[in-house]
Amino acid sequence: MRVELTPGTVALVAGGPGDPDLLTLAACRALEQADVVLYDYLAPDVAGLVRSGTELIAVGKRPRSTDATSQDDINALLVAQAKAGRRVVRLKGGDNYVFGRGGEEWLHCADAGVPVIVIPGVTSATSAPAFAGIPVTHRSLSQGFTVVSGHAAPGHATSTIDWRALARSGTTLVLLMGVKNLAAIAAELRDGGLSSDTPAAIVSSAFGETASVVRGTLATIADQAVSAGVRPPSIVVIGAVAGLDLS
Amino acid sequence: MRVELTPGTVALVAGGPGDPDLLTLAACRALEQADVVLYDYLAPDVAGLVRSGTELIAVGKRPRSTDATSQDDINALLVAQAKAGRRVVRLKGGDNYVFGRGGEEWLHCADAGVPVIVIPGVTSATSAPAFAGIPVTHRSLSQGFTVVSGHAAPGHATSTIDWRALARSGTTLVLLMGVKNLAAIAAELRDGGLSSDTPAAIVSSAFGETASVVRGTLATIADQAVSAGVRPPSIVVIGAVAGLDLS
Repeated sequence: MRVELTPGTVALVAGGPGDPDLLTLAACRALEQADVVLYDYLAPDVAGLVRSGTELIAVGKRPRSTDATSQDDINALLVAQAKAGRRVVRLKGGDNYVFGRGGEEWLHCADAGVPVIVIPGVTSATSAPAFAGIPVTHRSLSQGFTVVSGHAAPGHATSTIDWRALARSGTTLVLLMGVKNLAAIAAELRDGGLSSDTPAAIVSSAFGETASVVRGTLATIADQAVSAGVRPPSIVVIGAVAGLDLS
Repeated sequence: MRVELTPGTVALVAGGPGDPDLLTLAACRALEQADVVLYDYLAPDVAGLVRSGTELIAVGKRPRSTDATSQDDINALLVAQAKAGRRVVRLKGGDNYVFGRGGEEWLHCADAGVPVIVIPGVTSATSAPAFAGIPVTHRSLSQGFTVVSGHAAPGHATSTIDWRALARSGTTLVLLMGVKNLAAIAAELRDGGLSSDTPAAIVSSAFGETASVVRGTLATIADQAVSAGVRPPSIVVIGAVAGLDLS
């Protein structure tokens, strides 16, 4: 894809799982052209990849912070920067269209008449498991995987996921933002028929200096998360493939 | 990640959805160091990214070809090349650990005492929908997505997916290799309770010169695939987000 970031345009750029080497070439080209980069706290450090004079603005939302106003502010800032004639990169950790609220930012820009380009990238949903030696699919073990936000607990008014159906789906389950509600999610999956001895793993800060992996089963993983002091960003993998360690 | 491909090592390198600009920097470093690259037919053209003298070997499997022997041959070739002291890159379209049989290749190399490094990349499961302006998650529409192979039809002896459970899961469904069995899959999803008017889209050859998108509903999409002459590689997206066009 030829990346030409014209003045007044916003590029939604996937930053990948945090390691700058997992940026795409297209992402690097957008960053090289940017006048301003709005980045999240999980985005890779790109200070060495931008032109001298490029403005870097942290707009990250920390886990467990209230973010409703904040996302509105980000939307407004994207439009304001573009309307000022700047080349704007919106850099997210992971992929903007995988729990990155890229769709909302796209719609907000479009409503304001600001052109948007989208540069997809490496999602943590598959790369964090790979870091831990876990392929989300494996010929003899899994013909699919489900990536789901654990942000809303099972049964919570805002949850639209049927966890018991997922328990029966036959797919590997990958939870993002799933540690806080892990005990409730694991219980719901077991109630849905998923065996207690199903392998489970938690991958924290994949590709980072403080990377760690906790391995257990559906029965044990929530307690292990507590005793190990697991912190965000963490990815939980549940399914037979979580018993592999191809690393 | 520091990529140092020592002689006798195999790197499983994600090629992304086909556009060389969607390779990661780490993938490019591995390719620059390679003595030999074993690539699939869906991998991006990397002739311009390797050193002069690097051997490029096509080991691609075309859709609908019988591939059992072929994968054995690939496994054997990876080990033979590494045992000959070469720096080996195994380049796949998409991501090696997302329906790329990377796990099998890893295990085969490990059994033979060949060191393996894994470089994750951009999976077509999320990037092909993004190409068509479809975010696989969107705050008001989807809290998760399921990526599943449509290679084995529902009810087939080799299928381990519970499609009716997926119909109730509340997740966006992304089918890879799903066109051949799309009519049977759509029928099973409807029998499982997924509404016939659920938006559906097929993204073919995303990022390629012959890219195309077909949009319809769960009730119509299989017939549309036939009338449009949809061919692999194609990704099918089913769910409310398939009604978006953020492109």
